[in-house]
Amino acid sequence: MDRVQIGIIGFGTVGSGTAEVLLENRDLIRGRSGVDINIKVIADLNLRWDRGLNLEGIRLTEEAMEIVEDPEIQIAVELIGGLTTAKEYVTEAIKRGKHVVTANKALLAHCGEELFSLAQRHNVLIGFEASVGGGIPIITAIQNGLTGNRITKLMAILNGTSNYILTRMRSELLPYQEVVDEAVRLGYAEDPPTLDVDGTDVAHKLVILMALFYGMWFPLEEIYKEGIQEITPQDISFAEELGYRIKLLGMAKSRGKRVEARVHPVMIPKEHMLSGVEGAYNGIYLEGDFVGPTLFYGLGAGRRPTGSAVVSDIVSIAKRLRSQQKSFSSPIWALGPKEEFRLCPMGEVETPYYFRFQAVDKPGVLSKISGILANHQISIASVIQKGRRLEGSVPIVMLTHEAKEKAVREAIEKIDQLDVVTDKTLIIRVEAQDAL
Amino acid sequence: MDRVQIGIIGFGTVGSGTAEVLLENRDLIRGRSGVDINIKVIADLNLRWDRGLNLEGIRLTEEAMEIVEDPEIQIAVELIGGLTTAKEYVTEAIKRGKHVVTANKALLAHCGEELFSLAQRHNVLIGFEASVGGGIPIITAIQNGLTGNRITKLMAILNGTSNYILTRMRSELLPYQEVVDEAVRLGYAEDPPTLDVDGTDVAHKLVILMALFYGMWFPLEEIYKEGIQEITPQDISFAEELGYRIKLLGMAKSRGKRVEARVHPVMIPKEHMLSGVEGAYNGIYLEGDFVGPTLFYGLGAGRRPTGSAVVSDIVSIAKRLRSQQKSFSSPIWALGPKEEFRLCPMGEVETPYYFRFQAVDKPGVLSKISGILANHQISIASVIQKGRRLEGSVPIVMLTHEAKEKAVREAIEKIDQLDVVTDKTLIIRVEAQDAL
Repeated sequence: MDRVQIGIIGFGTVGSGTAEVLLENRDLIRGRSGVDINIKVIADLNLRWDRGLNLEGIRLTEEAMEIVEDPEIQIAVELIGGLTTAKEYVTEAIKRGKHVVTANKALLAHCGEELFSLAQRHNVLIGFEASVGGGIPIITAIQNGLTGNRITKLMAILNGTSNYILTRMRSELLPYQEVVDEAVRLGYAEDPPTLDVDGTDVAHKLVILMALFYGMWFPLEEIYKEGIQEITPQDISFAEELGYRIKLLGMAKSRGKRVEARVHPVMIPKEHMLSGVEGAYNGIYLEGDFVGPTLFYGLGAGRRPTGSAVVSDIVSIAKRLRSQQKSFSSPIWALGPKEEFRLCPMGEVETPYYFRFQAVDKPGVLSKISGILANHQISIASVIQKGRRLEGSVPIVMLTHEAKEKAVREAIEKIDQLDVVTDKTLIIRVEAQDAL
Repeated sequence: MDRVQIGIIGFGTVGSGTAEVLLENRDLIRGRSGVDINIKVIADLNLRWDRGLNLEGIRLTEEAMEIVEDPEIQIAVELIGGLTTAKEYVTEAIKRGKHVVTANKALLAHCGEELFSLAQRHNVLIGFEASVGGGIPIITAIQNGLTGNRITKLMAILNGTSNYILTRMRSELLPYQEVVDEAVRLGYAEDPPTLDVDGTDVAHKLVILMALFYGMWFPLEEIYKEGIQEITPQDISFAEELGYRIKLLGMAKSRGKRVEARVHPVMIPKEHMLSGVEGAYNGIYLEGDFVGPTLFYGLGAGRRPTGSAVVSDIVSIAKRLRSQQKSFSSPIWALGPKEEFRLCPMGEVETPYYFRFQAVDKPGVLSKISGILANHQISIASVIQKGRRLEGSVPIVMLTHEAKEKAVREAIEKIDQLDVVTDKTLIIRVEAQDAL
């Protein structure tokens, strides 16, 4: 039986999960792939804590470069994460003709173009299934299963932590900060969970998915990004009442060569499949020109699910090595007549909006607000105004028809300056019913 | 640029969809795969009707063997379906060293073992993404994305026609036959839609998925099978009231080497992701030992979605041809060490049950029924008995705790012989809340 030697760089959560899959299901993988995958070396700066695994026969080292430089190792598995040393190891491994598997979404979102060109020149593969959607095999689904499709729309819950927070806020009607504190205490979220809740992590993953759809790497800093920190349980209740759920989404929509890409909370109809994606789960909703609407659902993080994704890449490369492949099929963006897509500026995006104004409970307030909206060609679809006073002010909630982001920002800036308006207006973009 | 020559056998719905993807997205596919896929010949017995496609440069023939015998054609795409001539063409193509792509679930469910052994001997691939789940890339997801996992549980909506019927019955509270007649009239269902509604089509797909999970082909005739013909709108309403939805599922569960495989209507909790799979959509819910729960959702049939799946196989084989692969990686069941799974007899299956008894509205009826259940160690979880009379009899609905199928059948046989029971008892198996 063919044997493939691998080295794992980074032995934290994902590294241990990867080793666990390979060790526990070694026979299964051997049977399915025809290859015996052998972990030759594992490198980590901290080898002291017990991973609960039988590591007999595996060399442990603090020196990641040992893996990169070992000529026997065919696949280097980078699971350090982040933008510090990971890039060096990946680059050096590629230069030495090694295939690379990585779960590092930040690295790919920042340096994808550079790394994939390098891999192309050295005729090696980069596997990155684990970089998006945890255990969900979304990369292979897009690269292989949907390869004949133009992907025209993506709406995706890509961060389990923020989805868990929103789910708890809804089910328990707890304020944001309280749920975050609890999640940190229980070890479900990092302290502080900034990159998870502010949309950064989602933006990383969005840029990777967009590279698959459009064959080009969009600059991360040009992706519009907004987090969930301003959402209140009150907004979640209003959304319920209006037939919606609030989710933090990564979105990409294309029409011709024009691409809208954004990360922010979205109100989606309760009946949409994405509304059923709760807790720490991820859900990736795609529309292709032939396949139509699809959804992929599963755990977006965690030792075992992410390990499952890393191993799928390792096995896939190992099978290609076994089949004596000479030229390693380029990832889809490295070839071809390049289509030049361009990002639509955020100000030009058109979508329905949810506004929650905080205003004093006096006659004439509604007329002032709606007057400004009308002046900006923003047309109101429905209003909820309730009598209950919150420290002297009341919430007024509006859903609009499609409006232009630029007009909305201008209108809201004026509204927030009204003396009857007591607080900053909260804006949530809405995905309308016909998006089902 | 490399060019791969293909021939399409069968130019009906799926054949036209396949040609449509390849023609309409030819540049896109070329860019993504590095291969130009050329349809050299299309064969069909009826070439007269207009498929709405520009077929310039493609040879049309009534002789499928022309494709099989053409040495230039590298991939034969079998889209005739059924068990008549399809097998001959597939077999002959393989023997001549051609790779095969097929959407033919009946053929694979009946002759999978034989065909894949033959392909193995001739070092060719059989692509069958389109045989299960229409456009959903479920085969590549399992074969590649989840390859490190033991799949321990499958619950899948695999037939769009029956799911459409159940959805309409629920939303409009219409009887089965009325919805079927309407679906046939609108062209959504075949006339009669026997294989779709009686579980046969689902059983075909289940056997294919099980081959992927367990590495062996289970005999189709040993899969327990029950259709949706007996379900009434009344049952659907009772299910709603109890917090469930009724879906026709293909199920496979394994514990160690013991596999439960069955096709029948199931009551699943409303909050389960599968309950949101409505209309003509398919949904495949899987649990793997590492990945945990996952769901794959999309259109289960139709010209364009199924075309998308067929094309994904064609491109995948074309990419391997381009990369100068010598040995074509065997599908996972063709390699050892063979694990010997065995089917659990239906009588030994344990699950909660829904019973709808039809009985005269007299004192003592409930006590007679529950007495027989108790004698068979079947424990009742809840009862709904309502006063409304239906032609002299009333429905009594019960949910049980876990009970053994064998005991249930014996008990129901006795109950159905009671003189107070006016009609055959309807049984629906229940997937309990903890299955979420």
